[in-house]
Amino acid sequence: MILELADIEIHPGKQTEFDSAIVNGVQNAISKAKGFRGYKINKGIESPERYVLMVFWDTLENHTVDFRGSELFTQWRSIVGPYFASPPKVEHFDLLAKSD
Amino acid sequence: MILELADIEIHPGKQTEFDSAIVNGVQNAISKAKGFRGYKINKGIESPERYVLMVFWDTLENHTVDFRGSELFTQWRSIVGPYFASPPKVEHFDLLAKSD
Repeated sequence: MILELADIEIHPGKQTEFDSAIVNGVQNAISKAKGFRGYKINKGIESPERYVLMVFWDTLENHTVDFRGSELFTQWRSIVGPYFASPPKVEHFDLLAKSD
Repeated sequence: MILELADIEIHPGKQTEFDSAIVNGVQNAISKAKGFRGYKINKGIESPERYVLMVFWDTLENHTVDFRGSELFTQWRSIVGPYFASPPKVEHFDLLAKSD
């Protein structure tokens, strides 16, 4: 399993609308994708326009190839894209260690 | 509970040493701090010098005041600091939503 970490910056003052949009987009688009395993959505405390979306996938290609090449990606971006102040910064990670 | 997200960039070629150092530092310093609730350490796939450390704390102040003002912080930085290529970027987050 790998972690997708998407660092998102939205337009100021749109937090309440975006809170609904991102949950909608994850639940109705991303979570239906092949290899999807789970998610967390985090809201910035110091930076209230910053959101960090974590999505767990079986493989890197489930995100970068299967999801991004699918209609679900188009749906996802149509739901959340209008709020983005800049393109999200997205990278992937392996888990090195965690607490029990 | 809040999430501390520390974005760490280390010197190239030091991954194997740093893998041990960061686990050591979290287990022997951070995890002994007041308000510590858990952690994950993630290693970059696209950016092999990038690590994202996630620490869960009861309150923001448990990290920013209690931990950073304690001897445990000095211990932590003495273990991992030599590997840092630049100061880690650290911010805090509230959880908006997650999968079941």
